[in-house]
Amino acid sequence: MTSSTASSAARFSGVVPPVATPLNTDGTVDHGSLARLVDHLIDAGCTGLFALGSTGETAYFTETQRVEIARTIVETTAGRVPIIAGAIELTAGRIIETARALTAVGVDAIVTTAPLYTLNSPAEIAAHFRTIAAAIDVPLWAYDVPVRVHTKLSLALLMELAAEGVIAGVKDSSGDDVGFRRLLAANEAAGHPLQLLTGHEMVVDAMLLAGADGVVPGFANVEAEGYVRLWDAATRGDWDAARTEQERINALFEVVFQPTGLSGDATGVGAFKAAMVARGIIDHAVMAPGVEALDDAAVEKIRAILDAHDLLPA
Amino acid sequence: MTSSTASSAARFSGVVPPVATPLNTDGTVDHGSLARLVDHLIDAGCTGLFALGSTGETAYFTETQRVEIARTIVETTAGRVPIIAGAIELTAGRIIETARALTAVGVDAIVTTAPLYTLNSPAEIAAHFRTIAAAIDVPLWAYDVPVRVHTKLSLALLMELAAEGVIAGVKDSSGDDVGFRRLLAANEAAGHPLQLLTGHEMVVDAMLLAGADGVVPGFANVEAEGYVRLWDAATRGDWDAARTEQERINALFEVVFQPTGLSGDATGVGAFKAAMVARGIIDHAVMAPGVEALDDAAVEKIRAILDAHDLLPA
Amino acid sequence: MTSSTASSAARFSGVVPPVATPLNTDGTVDHGSLARLVDHLIDAGCTGLFALGSTGETAYFTETQRVEIARTIVETTAGRVPIIAGAIELTAGRIIETARALTAVGVDAIVTTAPLYTLNSPAEIAAHFRTIAAAIDVPLWAYDVPVRVHTKLSLALLMELAAEGVIAGVKDSSGDDVGFRRLLAANEAAGHPLQLLTGHEMVVDAMLLAGADGVVPGFANVEAEGYVRLWDAATRGDWDAARTEQERINALFEVVFQPTGLSGDATGVGAFKAAMVARGIIDHAVMAPGVEALDDAAVEKIRAILDAHDLLPA
Amino acid sequence: MTSSTASSAARFSGVVPPVATPLNTDGTVDHGSLARLVDHLIDAGCTGLFALGSTGETAYFTETQRVEIARTIVETTAGRVPIIAGAIELTAGRIIETARALTAVGVDAIVTTAPLYTLNSPAEIAAHFRTIAAAIDVPLWAYDVPVRVHTKLSLALLMELAAEGVIAGVKDSSGDDVGFRRLLAANEAAGHPLQLLTGHEMVVDAMLLAGADGVVPGFANVEAEGYVRLWDAATRGDWDAARTEQERINALFEVVFQPTGLSGDATGVGAFKAAMVARGIIDHAVMAPGVEALDDAAVEKIRAILDAHDLLPA
Repeated sequence: MTSSTASSAARFSGVVPPVATPLNTDGTVDHGSLARLVDHLIDAGCTGLFALGSTGETAYFTETQRVEIARTIVETTAGRVPIIAGAIELTAGRIIETARALTAVGVDAIVTTAPLYTLNSPAEIAAHFRTIAAAIDVPLWAYDVPVRVHTKLSLALLMELAAEGVIAGVKDSSGDDVGFRRLLAANEAAGHPLQLLTGHEMVVDAMLLAGADGVVPGFANVEAEGYVRLWDAATRGDWDAARTEQERINALFEVVFQPTGLSGDATGVGAFKAAMVARGIIDHAVMAPGVEALDDAAVEKIRAILDAHDLLPA
Repeated sequence: MTSSTASSAARFSGVVPPVATPLNTDGTVDHGSLARLVDHLIDAGCTGLFALGSTGETAYFTETQRVEIARTIVETTAGRVPIIAGAIELTAGRIIETARALTAVGVDAIVTTAPLYTLNSPAEIAAHFRTIAAAIDVPLWAYDVPVRVHTKLSLALLMELAAEGVIAGVKDSSGDDVGFRRLLAANEAAGHPLQLLTGHEMVVDAMLLAGADGVVPGFANVEAEGYVRLWDAATRGDWDAARTEQERINALFEVVFQPTGLSGDATGVGAFKAAMVARGIIDHAVMAPGVEALDDAAVEKIRAILDAHDLLPA
Repeated sequence: MTSSTASSAARFSGVVPPVATPLNTDGTVDHGSLARLVDHLIDAGCTGLFALGSTGETAYFTETQRVEIARTIVETTAGRVPIIAGAIELTAGRIIETARALTAVGVDAIVTTAPLYTLNSPAEIAAHFRTIAAAIDVPLWAYDVPVRVHTKLSLALLMELAAEGVIAGVKDSSGDDVGFRRLLAANEAAGHPLQLLTGHEMVVDAMLLAGADGVVPGFANVEAEGYVRLWDAATRGDWDAARTEQERINALFEVVFQPTGLSGDATGVGAFKAAMVARGIIDHAVMAPGVEALDDAAVEKIRAILDAHDLLPA
Repeated sequence: MTSSTASSAARFSGVVPPVATPLNTDGTVDHGSLARLVDHLIDAGCTGLFALGSTGETAYFTETQRVEIARTIVETTAGRVPIIAGAIELTAGRIIETARALTAVGVDAIVTTAPLYTLNSPAEIAAHFRTIAAAIDVPLWAYDVPVRVHTKLSLALLMELAAEGVIAGVKDSSGDDVGFRRLLAANEAAGHPLQLLTGHEMVVDAMLLAGADGVVPGFANVEAEGYVRLWDAATRGDWDAARTEQERINALFEVVFQPTGLSGDATGVGAFKAAMVARGIIDHAVMAPGVEALDDAAVEKIRAILDAHDLLPA
């Protein structure tokens, strides 16, 4: 389908957090905590949910697990906000299988990356997105995350796919602020065919000033209200308030820099999960299979940061 | 299982080509051509087969397609040589599912890489291989291909996994000749727990001189006899003959440098498939879904190189 | 010397453009054009000058040429604004020689990078800056430009050098907006020992909102008034005006994306020089020795962009 | 000048070690040790010397120091073998100044890399080598070391410069064994215009089998006799003897993997210098300014490796 036929509900904007995946101590999905987390996010004012993204540790789950995670998110959300789900797989044929399984349980849009493992040209990557879009019944988004995919989606590629109606939006975690600014300008000049969300959660005030349509903040799993306030301040043009809120969030975001000696996945999501447990949002800080746990010292530092901001329960 | 319990049939050595995947013009697997290809390889003297590797375009196929490809290779081989199959997926849980599906149709060993898409530490990568090895009934090999995986498997990691019996061998496509030489020496010092195959098919004479146990040559899909002669020369210590054969092969290998302006996957496998069609080994040079085809000029140059070496049918 | 003894004149902030180096058709420095350029920049309201940076093509000049370029900039400036000069060389001993030659002609501060060509640890890079700072009589700045140096200066390293008084500021061209935001916060928490200038000239509004002390905009060589207006708007907290000005500048900045098929150095500085000639600021668009010239088609596109913004002389 | 006019003395082949630079405890050049080292290398049968390369820590020295180092090497050599010297600097104009200073003291050839710090196209890099070759009176070599220069010199570029007589040889430290093999074949097909030396000192047997003209082994500073024996074995076609010698050397080469936690420059050259002191070849293991020293534990491990091979003085 093309973006022009997408329901307005799927025009994601504002605060669209990537939903973490709480697990039980035996490694199974903790559906109770997951439902509580979804309510926490929606109650705080988030305007959409991003299921099965990197923060959701989607790469570590089997197809069966992915579907059950999506189902709980869809059922708990119950239509209150739209849901976009990651279909992270190697290539188009496999992505389509995953995307269909996820849309079957009711997600409103699909987001995917350039192919993984393969060595493709820009023309092949464009064809990849076209093939997927033609095979699914919901809007397709492009996820630009070179640190994981090792390919940068170019401005020309994204605007070409936008003009064709192949993609409805971009989640940008490219680490290329100049590239994102040029994308914002080109999108505006083309009549805003794309919704453009930034994943750079420490510079959201700046990216909203620059014209981003919203943010996908992993830290919202720990505290969503701040990003909602930031978004509201930006929407009313109060940039000093937006910056003040961003700086408060950034001081909190230092939780992710407390663990040392661990992998990128263990550190980032691990810090979020530890903070979520400390706040009582989820029950266990269990990581996806194969990802190392934080040690007690790191958890204690994380609790101290939350405490200093009055974010621990009484 | 551990390598010590692996059947001797699975101690891969010598010439173990990665089997290409011939397709029909409608994109389905051309089982007739695939069977002919398997016979071509075994008849020429290859001592093992590597199914569903990068040359086999495995990343582009669905699970269903992968299983039917493996089945045809297994059935055509009929036990004449051992078969190792790639289980190329994101993370351990998903790899195990693929590996079990492949071993169920009869492959003798599984080879896989470090996780894809994720951001892991060496300790997490070691755990990844341990988890997979514990869950399958055939020997596990490590595939070191940083150009695709964006992670280099370190000497320390590989030797640790070897000492534990987690991996039975390594297919090295790392592009790090010094690292491979150190691995050969460390493996020898440890009593040769690993079989070490090089994927650097233009320097096989040199790698065999250095002590490699064999080679995984993509070009064998086009002409396997050369690599068998090279291996035989090296086995009897006739290094001048090995070099002469390598240089003949390398002149032929220039087929992969004829296409211009295409992706890495289109160029390498595309050149092999064009040459295989020219030689009558397979029926069509159709590429995996999403990969661009060679143009006529490139195909003509490839034919000319084969012709100059008397490799075209009369 | 330490930053605490730096004259207030050398507390660079606001708009501090990197001065391009106009050349004659025989490749010698065009001192007349260079003097006109310096006046253009200062008259427009720039608050400092960055001599011999990447935009100044400093890497392509011999020591003799560097000194004569610095001398013309110093003499033309005549104390109206402070001047910071790049001492871009391989390692500390060589950098000190260059820095002393430049301070001898009167520049107010020196900026340099981590070592080039060598393979150093963070501790060695810290020692590198300490050695240089101890050997020169003006404040030292760190220049973080990984695309050229292939080393990222870490937050910990920069704050350590700041605490010791080794560096007085940082020119950030790291392409890491999150890292820069954390540096801004850490610097503020430490009492603002560093002046922090961004080189990301397409997102200056955003970086000033985030707290940057100023900008080093190459495009100011073509039109400096816009950046001065942007800085003034930001200073008075009018972020909508700042964004509007940034967007006007960004539309103009597209000049650097007009050339195709050339190197990074040929494209960026080449576009600036072509635009400067079109505007009558310098006489020739001659590039540093070894850098290719733009073709006529690119120059024409650049002129058209300027013309559309009424930036060509009547 | 062109390679066709180069004296036969400058057709470097065989064992051409990069000469380390011994320093006194006050950081000045230890000319006595340097002279002893040169004699050690020539007496062992080395067929040329590579002055002021990476192993010679050339990047850390000022122009004055470089000239005095070259002078001692030239005077001690006294014409017994030809000397090629590195002119490692940012760009052509600066390289020419360095090259002329070095040829003035009598080196027989100059080797340099692609430009540093700059962002150049292949055409600009070709022009860079042409400009330098035209400005000096001795043969020019290309040094391909992407780990330091962050640019790979392509096969097409090198063969184009060879055909024009711009370069007389290549010192390959590219880490790309397949690329080097293709270069060897292309050079042979073109009539061997280039001398091709490998810097991969752990795989010299393999590279000589593949056709390399010689080797630039850093470890020869510690023990040169092994590489001479290896070269002699290869020359007479005794590849088993060549491999045996290579494996003996590689066991010794493990000295460079003993230091931990230090930079690449500290580790490699540091291990060589520690071993040279242990063997009595030089007086001090002082590193170039800014490079950290090995700790006692690393030095002790290095001594133990030498001792196990009977390489310590009685």
